[in-house]
Amino acid sequence: MDRSPIRAIHLAVGLVVLFVTTAVAWADDTLPSWNDGAAKSAIVAFVVRVTQEGSPDFVPPAQRIATFDNDGTLWSEQPAYFQLAFAFYRIKVMAPKHPEWKDKQPYKAVLEGDMQALAAAGEKGLLELMAVTHAGMTTDEFATAVADWCDSAEHPRFKRPYIDLVFQPMLELLSYLRDNGFKTFIVSGGGVEFMRVFAERVYGIPPEQVIGSSGVLKFEMRDGKPVLVKEPKIEFIDDKAGKPAGIQRFIGRRPILAFGNSDGDQQMLEWTAAGSGARFMGIVHHTDAQREWAYDRQSKIGTLNTAWDEATAKGWTVVDMKQDWKVIYPFQK
Amino acid sequence: MDRSPIRAIHLAVGLVVLFVTTAVAWADDTLPSWNDGAAKSAIVAFVVRVTQEGSPDFVPPAQRIATFDNDGTLWSEQPAYFQLAFAFYRIKVMAPKHPEWKDKQPYKAVLEGDMQALAAAGEKGLLELMAVTHAGMTTDEFATAVADWCDSAEHPRFKRPYIDLVFQPMLELLSYLRDNGFKTFIVSGGGVEFMRVFAERVYGIPPEQVIGSSGVLKFEMRDGKPVLVKEPKIEFIDDKAGKPAGIQRFIGRRPILAFGNSDGDQQMLEWTAAGSGARFMGIVHHTDAQREWAYDRQSKIGTLNTAWDEATAKGWTVVDMKQDWKVIYPFQK
Repeated sequence: MDRSPIRAIHLAVGLVVLFVTTAVAWADDTLPSWNDGAAKSAIVAFVVRVTQEGSPDFVPPAQRIATFDNDGTLWSEQPAYFQLAFAFYRIKVMAPKHPEWKDKQPYKAVLEGDMQALAAAGEKGLLELMAVTHAGMTTDEFATAVADWCDSAEHPRFKRPYIDLVFQPMLELLSYLRDNGFKTFIVSGGGVEFMRVFAERVYGIPPEQVIGSSGVLKFEMRDGKPVLVKEPKIEFIDDKAGKPAGIQRFIGRRPILAFGNSDGDQQMLEWTAAGSGARFMGIVHHTDAQREWAYDRQSKIGTLNTAWDEATAKGWTVVDMKQDWKVIYPFQK
Repeated sequence: MDRSPIRAIHLAVGLVVLFVTTAVAWADDTLPSWNDGAAKSAIVAFVVRVTQEGSPDFVPPAQRIATFDNDGTLWSEQPAYFQLAFAFYRIKVMAPKHPEWKDKQPYKAVLEGDMQALAAAGEKGLLELMAVTHAGMTTDEFATAVADWCDSAEHPRFKRPYIDLVFQPMLELLSYLRDNGFKTFIVSGGGVEFMRVFAERVYGIPPEQVIGSSGVLKFEMRDGKPVLVKEPKIEFIDDKAGKPAGIQRFIGRRPILAFGNSDGDQQMLEWTAAGSGARFMGIVHHTDAQREWAYDRQSKIGTLNTAWDEATAKGWTVVDMKQDWKVIYPFQK
């Protein structure tokens, strides 16, 4: 007797069982660090809506553009933006070659950790520190400096590398979207050359999908080899009204999903909301002083005020960090 | 007797035959509009080198970045850059709402097709025409105007839409690279908002992989809806030394393959060549006055002079349009 038809049926049944098991397991594994609640439901409902073929809200994969702010949305931003911590770190690394800094503000303040003197140096002092640490070197040299900071510097509160302070629930959201055919982008006020050093490793977002603020680059020949030198001249500020402009300039399509955490993201969320078809606008609300930080309307960093009002008025999704997230950082899993 | 093992062998043999046949057919179909010769061989040899696992020159797919100039490399650029033809077309479309243009230069020259008067208006006149046709409208309005031009305007020599004048051999090269895991980008001096309207349809290159020159965009609320308005202010010129800067700004990785046709592409080719590992630098040389145009060192448009010398000195691949290409345009197939 030829038993191959029976074998074929066994095989088919086996495959169906495998498929069903996998599908159920997958459903349970969706966003595991998110508590069941309105935020998680809204995200999943939106993704199902735009990815189900035949659905009136179906969006072809090429148009599934998702944009995320970085500071305060994908990683923490307290007690100060991490890129500022990088600048201070660099001042210390560079100090041996600049003995004059010992007696010169604002460098002296950084080297001595004198926050009062630093505050007195004001915005002008800060801009000088940023220029010295972010310009006058090639793009390759800068990338090496950022990589060194990622490996060496420690966050004062958590005593861990800054790149450990990324939000586990957001990492899961990025993966979930990519698994559903979305292209994920960072759209941040942070420096594009800064973020690209770790964005692929930490978020799985390749350099060409990172949009940020930038300085002018100058092409030069050095010993017959071309280099790009970072000049101390701002080219583009990717914040507030700059975010929709940056999205248009870099992506050329309107996102269907955007996530931010502050008033600096309001225009990006408005720009996303104004497109036709299904849209998702999300805001991370920092409500967890114990595990992370709690701040909103009154905060100098990551102010969430007018964007919060608009989110409430328009029914955007506001994620309550304390209520909605089981863990904050990957090392707490 | 259980005959399933024999069937399995039959099936396996069948699959092998199918695979071999497919592989041979595929090899014959590679770049069908390219004549066999040094240029085609160099391209295929490079692609095999960087895609073969285990090869010392293997490049992971994520790093297979290929950048292409547009004007003169992917489509024609004579008798003038096609974006200028778009500007002139727009002046004519807009004229009924600007009766004063009948008597005012440089508009009068465009409306009357008076090339002498236009030349007399010089660069200042040209910039004015570009500003009027490229700014003072939203990005959506501009995209509609470009789409209209694509559908309506005709090239004076070929009496066909401008977007028909793309190079069939280059379309095949773009596809061949993508089939081999490359990500293809346009890096052009042309306007980014201009090219994106047709780049996906014509070249299969999505908006987020088009890099070009740009004007400042202003975010505004109009009747409660956000818009981006194109301002008459240049933000970035993606030409010559601007090309490596544009590549770094938008992609953040160095290409391993780049193609251009003029001195405006020289720095992009140098930047590509200066990376480590296998590299491919290509130049399209316009040598075919009969089927397209023949021009190089003395041409005002698409001057190929110093880049040609460097290509010769460094062994970059120079494509001789007349010798290397079986057909120029898709409609000649």
